[in-house]
Amino acid sequence: MQKPSNAQGTRDFGPEVMRKRDFILQSIRQVFVRYGFEPLETPALENLSMLTGKYGDEGDKLLYKIRSNKEIVNEVPADKASEIKSLFPDRWIPGESKLGLRYDLTVPFARFVVQHRNDITFPFRRYQIQPVWRADRPQKGRFREFTQCDADCIGSTSLLHEADLIQIYNEAFTAIGLTNAVVKMNHRKFLEALVDELQLDFPVGKFTSTLDKLDKIGEDGVMKELVGYGVDEAKCKQLFSIIGNAELTTANLHTFAKAFNNNTIAQEAINDLEAVLRYLGDSQLNIRVELDLSLARGLDYYTGCIFEAVVPNSGMGSISGGGRYDNLTGVFGLNDVSGVGISFGIDRIYEILEADHIWPENLHTNATVLICHFDEASQLYGVGVAAELRAAGLQSVVYSENKRINKQFDYANKIGVRHVIVIGESEMESGSLTLKDLVLGEQANLSVQEIITKLTE
Amino acid sequence: MQKPSNAQGTRDFGPEVMRKRDFILQSIRQVFVRYGFEPLETPALENLSMLTGKYGDEGDKLLYKIRSNKEIVNEVPADKASEIKSLFPDRWIPGESKLGLRYDLTVPFARFVVQHRNDITFPFRRYQIQPVWRADRPQKGRFREFTQCDADCIGSTSLLHEADLIQIYNEAFTAIGLTNAVVKMNHRKFLEALVDELQLDFPVGKFTSTLDKLDKIGEDGVMKELVGYGVDEAKCKQLFSIIGNAELTTANLHTFAKAFNNNTIAQEAINDLEAVLRYLGDSQLNIRVELDLSLARGLDYYTGCIFEAVVPNSGMGSISGGGRYDNLTGVFGLNDVSGVGISFGIDRIYEILEADHIWPENLHTNATVLICHFDEASQLYGVGVAAELRAAGLQSVVYSENKRINKQFDYANKIGVRHVIVIGESEMESGSLTLKDLVLGEQANLSVQEIITKLTE
Repeated sequence: MQKPSNAQGTRDFGPEVMRKRDFILQSIRQVFVRYGFEPLETPALENLSMLTGKYGDEGDKLLYKIRSNKEIVNEVPADKASEIKSLFPDRWIPGESKLGLRYDLTVPFARFVVQHRNDITFPFRRYQIQPVWRADRPQKGRFREFTQCDADCIGSTSLLHEADLIQIYNEAFTAIGLTNAVVKMNHRKFLEALVDELQLDFPVGKFTSTLDKLDKIGEDGVMKELVGYGVDEAKCKQLFSIIGNAELTTANLHTFAKAFNNNTIAQEAINDLEAVLRYLGDSQLNIRVELDLSLARGLDYYTGCIFEAVVPNSGMGSISGGGRYDNLTGVFGLNDVSGVGISFGIDRIYEILEADHIWPENLHTNATVLICHFDEASQLYGVGVAAELRAAGLQSVVYSENKRINKQFDYANKIGVRHVIVIGESEMESGSLTLKDLVLGEQANLSVQEIITKLTE
Repeated sequence: MQKPSNAQGTRDFGPEVMRKRDFILQSIRQVFVRYGFEPLETPALENLSMLTGKYGDEGDKLLYKIRSNKEIVNEVPADKASEIKSLFPDRWIPGESKLGLRYDLTVPFARFVVQHRNDITFPFRRYQIQPVWRADRPQKGRFREFTQCDADCIGSTSLLHEADLIQIYNEAFTAIGLTNAVVKMNHRKFLEALVDELQLDFPVGKFTSTLDKLDKIGEDGVMKELVGYGVDEAKCKQLFSIIGNAELTTANLHTFAKAFNNNTIAQEAINDLEAVLRYLGDSQLNIRVELDLSLARGLDYYTGCIFEAVVPNSGMGSISGGGRYDNLTGVFGLNDVSGVGISFGIDRIYEILEADHIWPENLHTNATVLICHFDEASQLYGVGVAAELRAAGLQSVVYSENKRINKQFDYANKIGVRHVIVIGESEMESGSLTLKDLVLGEQANLSVQEIITKLTE
């Protein structure tokens, strides 16, 4: 007999977990929708050629490749197949894969945009909430199958979208109960300006991949690495006098401008961020938005503003990231289409809410009304009551077994329902049913209509 | 440059298709929830050993198998790997797969139930809406990646659940607008009774797999096949005098009982179906429910009632199927757990609604309010208006580009929005904005608050 098990790095989501995950996803989805983002879904199966080479060498290694039995016939020449089979008499040797599993939502989105460019009206705002797969080593908070939750606006360079994304962060984190979240922002031009101002003689990408480690290895570590690359210590000290983080305000932008000696490249970043601030106007945000000039996030991809959201002291890395890209679709043959987007890490958000017990109260209750009974006649009567409750939009189940009433109450407690209706002979005669509230420990005798009124108010 | 394309047998779902699919899924989901079914999701990646052997030889061939680059290291002995590589110097030979893609929602559900049997309270009602994958030859209406939508109740033999499933069919098809759907029912005992009554000397499964073809090959075809198996023609004629279809009523059940010569096995089926009718009581159904004694649906799986839903004259096969099974979890080591469930074929339902143009009217409208403007000042003003609309729960987007107003209206038409707000200098001064209804071709000057009232009423 097989011992049932999950594949490593994957999880089942039972009812209680689903209620919690849905709370997060619905909170974010509703905000996306309010900001005019439209739904998109792309298939999990992609032609492998659409995926390989898009995520760097490391990414290629983490792609899940797929084959079906049929493919071996087409892919391995018959003579070679028999040779291989003789090497492995006891097992079947598969052919080369032509399919891969979705690795993120960004590349499939780019493919979609290019493929449908004649049907899409730009600017195009889409959100996409789907699982992705990575053949990574599973560890705490890192899974092989996990959900991404993205919103992108493509086909516009307007900084209105960056401002909208900040508002989306604010509304989504507020809805989820994470008002302590911090959105960090940076701008690619600031990073270019650092290289320019410090007169580093190596590519921006190399510089920023070192800078990206600041959180992990500290200023000393970064300095050591830069010095190893031949940067002199004075320049490193100059670097650390420029970078730093501060709330995103016009005043702080001007302070940064000065620290950069009004470097013209830095000024382009400042102009963009000032436009974002104009669009934000005097709106009050619940979350903190700060400039963090050490933020890089795989810079070769982003070309303008860069976003990252964290919950300080949660022990969890970033729970969202994103930014502006100017050539997402270039790899599929459509150049000069600028877009900007963010992606939420649902699993990490879940872990934070779970650790801090900050789920909304009602998530823990099963909203179903359980109808209990004493015999077949009262059970049949209960079926009619359930129909009335459902017609009024309530959830209801008639206990299906012929068991003692205490067993039925046990069941109610175990599946976490709050309200139970009890029907016996006298209830059927009078039409006055017993409604028990298992949370408050109260009960009342009410007509079906009174119960509906009470439970829908 | 790569030409972007979808993998064969897979599809992208853009905003318009998503709105339609969501309509179907939400309609069904809401009914599941009203009947107390709780959500479950299982991973797309399963250990291959959990899947193989569960779907018959044909099913095994249609399983998608997965590997990651890392696995070759563990799976192919180093010396053999080098031998294989010498045979294929130009390509990389993968190792054996240990993972597969979800093929249906039933086997993963069985795995879940067995794995969590100590935490689950029975009877356990779960619904599950997720994609599944089959390496089938793609053709019209048949895809390699498609969505299944299942509801099962496990751990109870009560026929109340069968009655609930009929009510669910009724409410779901009504919500979707398919009141012309017909739910066909049969019972495994009827099929066993046929074999018994006709004194056929071969297994029930062999008999029903022939009977299952009735729709395709007709009575003559079925008779020919049975005669080929050695059944004499008189018995075949007796068979066709018994089977047939009729509305599910107590009277019709008694007619069938007579046709069966009150065969005791057939009587067990009749007892079950009478119990279902008792639970249905006098509830009025919008859909037709009929007994169809030729319905088999992979009989070796079902042990009691069998369901199939069709839309007559749609040119589409069944849009749902299900039934009672007594040993779903046996393969994973948990015996004697009876359950009953149904599964909706979302893609076929979509095709029928699409062909008959019976989508609800409002599905075609983009509910977003587009805010148009004449310059940067009125755009900034619009950002504030959008914030007010969103705070009232409305969807809103400020047009992000600096373009002529007619271009902005073109955009509104193209993305399918109905309501546009126009803001110019005089609007900013007066606070009275122009609200255009692009469907009715009307416009009015209203304050933001009046607009909110009008659009939320």
